Amino acid sequence: MKYPNHIEKNYKNPLSYKNRGMDLEEDLNSTNEYYLEKDIALIFKKPTPIGVAKVSYSPKGKVIERAFFKEPSTLDYNGLYRGSYIEFDAKVTKNRTSFPLANIHPHQLEHIKKVIKHKGIAFLIIRINEIVYLLRGEDLLSYITSHKRNSIEYEFIKEKGYMIKYSFNPSLDYLKIVDHVYFKEE
Amino acid sequence: MKYPNHIEKNYKNPLSYKNRGMDLEEDLNSTNEYYLEKDIALIFKKPTPIGVAKVSYSPKGKVIERAFFKEPSTLDYNGLYRGSYIEFDAKVTKNRTSFPLANIHPHQLEHIKKVIKHKGIAFLIIRINEIVYLLRGEDLLSYITSHKRNSIEYEFIKEKGYMIKYSFNPSLDYLKIVDHVYFKEE
Repeated sequence: MKYPNHIEKNYKNPLSYKNRGMDLEEDLNSTNEYYLEKDIALIFKKPTPIGVAKVSYSPKGKVIERAFFKEPSTLDYNGLYRGSYIEFDAKVTKNRTSFPLANIHPHQLEHIKKVIKHKGIAFLIIRINEIVYLLRGEDLLSYITSHKRNSIEYEFIKEKGYMIKYSFNPSLDYLKIVDHVYFKEE
Repeated sequence: MKYPNHIEKNYKNPLSYKNRGMDLEEDLNSTNEYYLEKDIALIFKKPTPIGVAKVSYSPKGKVIERAFFKEPSTLDYNGLYRGSYIEFDAKVTKNRTSFPLANIHPHQLEHIKKVIKHKGIAFLIIRINEIVYLLRGEDLLSYITSHKRNSIEYEFIKEKGYMIKYSFNPSLDYLKIVDHVYFKEE
Protein backbone atom coordinates (compact mmCIF):
# COMPACT_ATOMS: atom_id res chain seq x y z
CA MET A 1 0.00 0.00 0.00
CA LYS A 2 1.29 3.42 -0.97
CA TYR A 3 0.85 6.60 0.99
CA PRO A 4 0.17 9.86 -0.80
CA ASN A 5 3.12 12.15 -1.04
CA HIS A 6 2.00 14.72 1.53
CA ILE A 7 2.25 12.23 4.39
CA GLU A 8 6.00 12.26 4.08
CA LYS A 9 5.95 16.04 4.16
CA ASN A 10 3.84 16.11 7.30
CA TYR A 11 6.30 13.95 9.20
CA LYS A 12 7.21 15.78 12.36
CA ASN A 13 10.83 15.91 13.38
CA PRO A 14 10.71 15.28 17.14
CA LEU A 15 13.57 17.74 17.58
CA SER A 16 11.97 20.60 15.74
CA TYR A 17 8.37 21.21 16.86
CA LYS A 18 8.48 23.69 14.02
CA ASN A 19 4.87 22.96 13.21
CA ARG A 20 3.74 24.24 16.57
CA GLY A 21 4.77 27.69 15.44
CA MET A 22 7.00 28.14 18.44
CA ASP A 23 10.15 30.13 18.08
CA LEU A 24 13.37 29.84 20.02
CA GLU A 25 12.73 32.93 22.10
CA GLU A 26 9.27 31.74 23.17
CA ASP A 27 10.70 28.35 24.09
CA LEU A 28 13.41 29.94 26.21
CA ASN A 29 10.98 32.33 27.88
CA SER A 30 8.63 29.51 28.85
CA THR A 31 11.60 27.45 30.05
CA ASN A 32 12.78 30.36 32.21
CA GLU A 33 9.27 30.71 33.64
CA TYR A 34 9.36 27.03 34.49
CA TYR A 35 12.73 27.47 36.23
CA LEU A 36 11.34 30.43 38.15
CA GLU A 37 8.16 28.62 39.25
CA LYS A 38 10.07 25.53 40.33
CA ASP A 39 12.64 27.75 42.08
CA ILE A 40 15.49 26.26 40.03
CA ALA A 41 17.04 29.44 38.67
CA LEU A 42 16.41 33.17 38.26
CA ILE A 43 16.97 33.88 34.58
CA PHE A 44 15.23 36.64 32.65
CA LYS A 45 15.29 38.09 29.20
CA LYS A 46 16.40 41.69 29.49
CA PRO A 47 13.95 44.25 28.15
CA THR A 48 15.05 45.64 24.79
CA PRO A 49 16.83 48.93 25.44
CA ILE A 50 14.95 51.86 23.99
CA GLY A 51 15.52 55.57 23.75
CA VAL A 52 12.35 57.46 24.62
CA ALA A 53 11.87 60.56 22.45
CA LYS A 54 8.41 61.71 23.49
CA VAL A 55 6.01 60.94 26.32
CA SER A 56 2.51 62.06 27.19
CA TYR A 57 0.42 61.68 30.32
CA SER A 58 -2.88 59.82 30.44
CA PRO A 59 -5.09 59.09 33.47
CA LYS A 60 -3.54 55.60 33.48
CA GLY A 61 0.03 56.91 33.64
CA LYS A 62 2.89 57.91 31.42
CA VAL A 63 2.58 56.85 27.75
CA ILE A 64 5.52 56.68 25.34
CA GLU A 65 4.59 58.50 22.14
CA ARG A 66 7.84 57.98 20.29
CA ALA A 67 10.89 55.83 20.96
CA PHE A 68 13.68 53.99 19.17
CA PHE A 69 15.24 50.58 19.64
CA LYS A 70 18.88 50.74 20.75
CA GLU A 71 21.60 48.22 20.05
CA PRO A 72 22.31 45.98 23.03
CA SER A 73 25.93 45.74 24.19
CA THR A 74 25.31 42.75 26.44
CA LEU A 75 23.53 39.45 25.80
CA ASP A 76 19.76 39.04 25.92
CA TYR A 77 19.38 36.75 28.92
CA ASN A 78 21.05 36.85 32.30
CA GLY A 79 20.55 35.60 35.79
CA LEU A 80 21.56 33.41 38.67
CA TYR A 81 21.87 29.63 38.85
CA ARG A 82 23.53 27.56 41.59
CA GLY A 83 25.38 30.60 42.87
CA SER A 84 26.77 31.43 39.42
CA TYR A 85 26.18 34.32 37.11
CA ILE A 86 24.83 33.18 33.75
CA GLU A 87 24.49 35.21 30.56
CA PHE A 88 23.56 34.05 27.09
CA ASP A 89 22.06 34.96 23.78
CA ALA A 90 19.73 33.00 21.53
CA LYS A 91 20.26 32.99 17.78
CA VAL A 92 18.48 31.29 14.91
CA THR A 93 19.89 30.81 11.44
CA LYS A 94 18.23 29.45 8.32
CA ASN A 95 21.65 28.85 6.88
CA ARG A 96 22.28 25.08 6.78
CA THR A 97 26.07 24.93 6.56
CA SER A 98 27.25 27.70 8.86
CA PHE A 99 26.23 30.27 11.46
CA PRO A 100 26.89 33.82 10.18
CA LEU A 101 28.85 35.90 12.66
CA ALA A 102 27.00 39.04 11.56
CA ASN A 103 24.42 37.77 14.08
CA ILE A 104 26.72 38.81 16.94
CA HIS A 105 27.84 42.39 17.47
CA PRO A 106 31.56 42.95 18.19
CA HIS A 107 30.74 44.53 21.58
CA GLN A 108 28.76 41.41 22.46
CA LEU A 109 31.85 39.31 21.79
CA GLU A 110 33.85 41.66 24.01
CA HIS A 111 31.20 41.25 26.66
CA ILE A 112 31.40 37.43 26.51
CA LYS A 113 35.16 37.70 27.10
CA LYS A 114 34.59 39.88 30.14
CA VAL A 115 31.91 37.63 31.65
CA ILE A 116 34.30 34.67 31.42
CA LYS A 117 37.14 36.71 32.88
CA HIS A 118 34.99 37.71 35.86
CA LYS A 119 34.10 34.04 36.46
CA GLY A 120 30.62 34.07 35.02
CA ILE A 121 29.13 31.55 32.60
CA ALA A 122 28.54 32.82 29.04
CA PHE A 123 27.26 30.90 26.05
CA LEU A 124 25.15 31.04 22.91
CA ILE A 125 22.05 28.99 22.22
CA ILE A 126 22.03 28.47 18.46
CA ARG A 127 19.30 26.88 16.38
CA ILE A 128 20.63 25.61 13.08
CA ASN A 129 19.08 22.92 10.88
CA GLU A 130 16.20 22.87 13.39
CA ILE A 131 18.52 21.56 16.09
CA VAL A 132 19.34 23.61 19.18
CA TYR A 133 22.90 23.71 20.50
CA LEU A 134 24.58 25.30 23.47
CA LEU A 135 27.97 26.66 22.41
CA ARG A 136 30.28 27.74 25.23
CA GLY A 137 31.60 31.29 25.04
CA GLU A 138 35.12 29.87 25.32
CA ASP A 139 34.66 27.73 22.19
CA LEU A 140 33.07 30.60 20.27
CA LEU A 141 35.97 32.92 21.09
CA SER A 142 38.66 30.36 20.28
CA TYR A 143 36.98 29.63 16.91
CA ILE A 144 36.91 33.32 16.07
CA THR A 145 40.55 33.78 17.07
CA SER A 146 41.79 30.88 14.95
CA HIS A 147 39.55 31.26 11.89
CA LYS A 148 39.45 34.24 9.61
CA ARG A 149 35.92 33.52 8.45
CA ASN A 150 32.74 35.50 8.92
CA SER A 151 30.75 32.46 9.93
CA ILE A 152 31.07 29.37 12.12
CA GLU A 153 30.94 26.11 10.21
CA TYR A 154 28.12 23.78 11.15
CA GLU A 155 30.67 21.01 11.63
CA PHE A 156 32.30 23.00 14.42
CA ILE A 157 28.95 23.59 16.15
CA LYS A 158 28.14 19.87 15.89
CA GLU A 159 31.53 18.95 17.30
CA LYS A 160 31.89 21.52 20.11
CA GLY A 161 28.25 22.36 20.84
CA TYR A 162 25.93 20.43 23.13
CA MET A 163 22.54 19.48 21.74
CA ILE A 164 19.56 20.70 23.78
CA LYS A 165 16.60 18.43 23.19
CA TYR A 166 13.05 19.69 23.03
CA SER A 167 10.71 18.27 25.63
CA PHE A 168 7.23 18.97 26.90
CA ASN A 169 7.89 21.08 29.99
CA PRO A 170 10.30 22.81 30.13
CA SER A 171 10.51 22.98 26.36
CA LEU A 172 14.28 23.51 26.24
CA ASP A 173 15.94 22.27 29.41
CA TYR A 174 19.26 24.01 28.80
CA LEU A 175 20.25 23.99 32.47
CA LYS A 176 20.65 20.21 32.22
CA ILE A 177 23.42 20.95 29.73
CA VAL A 178 24.80 23.70 31.96
CA ASP A 179 24.98 21.17 34.83
CA HIS A 180 26.90 18.78 32.62
CA VAL A 181 29.23 21.32 31.03
CA TYR A 182 29.93 23.77 33.86
CA PHE A 183 29.19 21.79 37.01
CA LYS A 184 30.59 18.48 35.71
CA GLU A 185 27.47 16.46 36.32
CA GLU A 186 25.93 13.63 34.35
CA MET B 1 31.47 88.83 64.29
CA LYS B 2 28.13 87.51 63.18
CA TYR B 3 27.37 85.90 59.88
CA PRO B 4 24.11 86.59 58.12
CA ASN B 5 21.62 83.78 58.36
CA HIS B 6 21.84 82.56 54.80
CA ILE B 7 25.48 81.49 55.20
CA GLU B 8 24.40 78.73 57.50
CA LYS B 9 21.87 77.62 54.93
CA ASN B 10 24.43 77.58 52.14
CA TYR B 11 26.76 75.31 54.04
CA LYS B 12 27.56 72.39 51.79
CA ASN B 13 27.35 68.95 53.29
CA PRO B 14 30.41 67.14 51.88
CA LEU B 15 28.34 63.95 51.71
CA SER B 16 25.55 65.40 49.65
CA TYR B 17 26.80 67.11 46.47
CA LYS B 18 23.14 68.05 46.15
CA ASN B 19 24.09 71.35 44.60
CA ARG B 20 25.70 69.67 41.65
CA GLY B 21 22.27 68.59 40.55
CA MET B 22 23.29 64.95 40.37
CA ASP B 23 20.79 62.32 41.25
CA LEU B 24 21.39 58.89 42.71
CA GLU B 25 20.71 57.07 39.47
CA GLU B 26 23.18 59.22 37.51
CA ASP B 27 25.80 58.67 40.19
CA LEU B 28 25.33 54.92 40.06
CA ASN B 29 25.37 54.84 36.26
CA SER B 30 28.63 56.76 36.10
CA THR B 31 30.07 54.55 38.84
CA ASN B 32 29.11 51.44 36.85
CA GLU B 33 30.73 52.92 33.74
CA TYR B 34 33.87 53.46 35.77
CA TYR B 35 33.79 49.82 36.96
CA LEU B 36 33.32 48.67 33.37
CA GLU B 37 36.16 50.80 31.98
CA LYS B 38 38.55 49.72 34.72
CA ASP B 39 37.41 46.10 34.27
CA ILE B 40 36.38 45.84 37.92
CA ALA B 41 32.81 44.62 37.49
CA LEU B 42 30.06 44.16 34.90
CA ILE B 43 27.02 45.86 36.36
CA PHE B 44 24.27 47.46 34.30
CA LYS B 45 20.97 49.15 34.86
CA LYS B 46 18.30 47.07 33.20
CA PRO B 47 16.26 48.86 30.57
CA THR B 48 12.79 49.77 31.85
CA PRO B 49 10.41 47.09 30.65
CA ILE B 50 7.88 48.45 28.18
CA GLY B 51 4.93 47.06 26.31
CA VAL B 52 5.01 48.18 22.69
CA ALA B 53 1.53 48.94 21.34
CA LYS B 54 2.32 50.39 17.91
CA VAL B 55 5.37 50.55 15.66
CA SER B 56 6.09 52.14 12.31
CA TYR B 57 8.96 51.80 9.88
CA SER B 58 11.24 54.62 8.86
CA PRO B 59 14.34 54.52 6.62
CA LYS B 60 16.41 54.47 9.84
CA GLY B 61 14.62 51.42 11.24
CA LYS B 62 11.69 50.47 13.41
CA VAL B 63 10.14 53.32 15.43
CA ILE B 64 7.91 52.81 18.45
CA GLU B 65 4.78 54.94 18.04
CA ARG B 66 3.06 53.95 21.26
CA ALA B 67 4.21 52.03 24.31
CA PHE B 68 3.59 51.76 28.05
CA PHE B 69 5.89 51.39 31.01
CA LYS B 70 5.52 48.05 32.80
CA GLU B 71 6.12 47.33 36.46
CA PRO B 72 9.47 45.64 37.08
CA SER B 73 9.42 42.40 39.06
CA THR B 74 13.17 42.34 39.63
CA LEU B 75 15.58 45.02 40.82
CA ASP B 76 16.97 47.76 38.57
CA TYR B 77 20.65 46.84 38.51
CA ASN B 78 22.32 43.50 38.10
CA GLY B 79 25.61 42.02 37.11
CA LEU B 80 28.77 40.16 37.93
CA TYR B 81 31.49 41.00 40.44
CA ARG B 82 34.30 38.74 41.66
CA GLY B 83 32.46 35.66 40.41
CA SER B 84 29.28 36.62 42.26
CA TYR B 85 25.87 37.59 41.02
CA ILE B 86 24.85 41.02 42.28
CA GLU B 87 21.44 42.66 42.12
CA PHE B 88 20.25 45.86 43.71
CA ASP B 89 17.86 48.73 43.55
CA ALA B 90 18.42 52.42 44.22
CA LYS B 91 15.84 54.40 46.18
CA VAL B 92 15.65 58.01 47.27
CA THR B 93 13.36 59.35 49.96
CA LYS B 94 12.74 62.92 51.05
CA ASN B 95 11.29 61.60 54.25
CA ARG B 96 13.71 62.40 57.09
CA THR B 97 12.67 59.88 59.73
CA SER B 98 11.89 56.73 57.78
CA PHE B 99 12.03 55.02 54.40
CA PRO B 100 8.49 54.28 53.12
CA LEU B 101 8.11 50.66 52.05
CA ALA B 102 5.66 51.70 49.33
CA ASN B 103 8.90 52.33 47.40
CA ILE B 104 9.40 48.57 47.02
CA HIS B 105 6.89 46.33 45.25
CA PRO B 106 5.98 43.06 47.01
CA HIS B 107 7.28 41.01 44.06
CA GLN B 108 10.61 42.83 44.37
CA LEU B 109 10.82 41.70 48.00
CA GLU B 110 10.07 38.14 46.88
CA HIS B 111 12.80 38.48 44.30
CA ILE B 112 15.35 39.62 46.90
CA LYS B 113 14.53 36.49 48.93
CA LYS B 114 15.12 34.30 45.91
CA VAL B 115 18.42 35.94 44.96
CA ILE B 116 19.74 35.32 48.48
CA LYS B 117 18.46 31.73 48.43
CA HIS B 118 20.29 31.07 45.14
CA LYS B 119 23.51 32.46 46.64
CA GLY B 120 23.51 35.83 44.95
CA ILE B 121 24.11 39.21 46.59
CA ALA B 122 21.05 41.48 46.91
CA PHE B 123 20.81 44.89 48.54
CA LEU B 124 19.25 48.31 48.39
CA ILE B 125 21.07 51.58 47.98
CA ILE B 126 19.01 54.14 49.87
CA ARG B 127 19.51 57.88 49.97
CA ILE B 128 17.90 59.40 53.02
CA ASN B 129 18.78 62.74 54.63
CA GLU B 130 21.25 63.22 51.74
CA ILE B 131 23.31 60.27 52.94
CA VAL B 132 23.63 57.10 50.88
CA TYR B 133 23.47 53.71 52.59
CA LEU B 134 23.82 50.14 51.42
CA LEU B 135 21.25 47.98 53.21
CA ARG B 136 21.70 44.22 52.85
CA GLY B 137 18.69 42.31 51.54
CA GLU B 138 18.93 40.07 54.61
CA ASP B 139 18.55 43.05 56.96
CA LEU B 140 15.70 44.49 54.93
CA LEU B 141 13.79 41.21 55.01
CA SER B 142 14.36 40.60 58.71
CA TYR B 143 13.14 44.13 59.50
CA ILE B 144 9.98 43.58 57.47
CA THR B 145 9.33 40.22 59.12
CA SER B 146 9.68 41.56 62.65
CA HIS B 147 8.02 44.99 62.24
CA LYS B 148 4.44 45.57 61.27
CA ARG B 149 5.14 49.03 59.91
CA ASN B 150 4.92 50.38 56.40
CA SER B 151 8.28 52.09 56.60
CA ILE B 152 11.80 51.44 57.85
CA GLU B 153 12.91 53.76 60.63
CA TYR B 154 15.94 55.88 59.86
CA GLU B 155 17.51 54.64 63.09
CA PHE B 156 17.49 51.08 61.70
CA ILE B 157 19.10 52.18 58.42
CA LYS B 158 21.78 54.08 60.35
CA GLU B 159 22.43 51.06 62.55
CA LYS B 160 22.35 48.25 59.98
CA GLY B 161 23.21 50.11 56.79
CA TYR B 162 26.70 50.92 55.52
CA MET B 163 27.37 54.49 54.50
CA ILE B 164 28.64 54.94 50.93
CA LYS B 165 30.68 58.11 50.70
CA TYR B 166 30.63 60.37 47.66
CA SER B 167 33.95 60.82 45.93
CA PHE B 168 35.22 62.26 42.69
CA ASN B 169 35.57 59.20 40.47
CA PRO B 170 33.79 56.86 40.88
CA SER B 171 31.15 59.03 42.50
CA LEU B 172 29.69 56.27 44.67
CA ASP B 173 32.17 53.47 45.19
CA TYR B 174 29.65 50.97 46.53
CA LEU B 175 31.78 47.94 45.64
CA LYS B 176 34.19 48.99 48.38
CA ILE B 177 31.30 48.37 50.78
CA VAL B 178 30.43 45.12 48.99
CA ASP B 179 34.04 43.97 49.50
CA HIS B 180 33.79 44.75 53.18
CA VAL B 181 30.32 43.30 53.78
CA TYR B 182 30.24 40.27 51.49
CA PHE B 183 33.90 39.43 50.93
CA LYS B 184 35.02 40.28 54.48
CA GLU B 185 37.71 42.73 53.47
CA GLU B 186 38.85 45.93 55.04
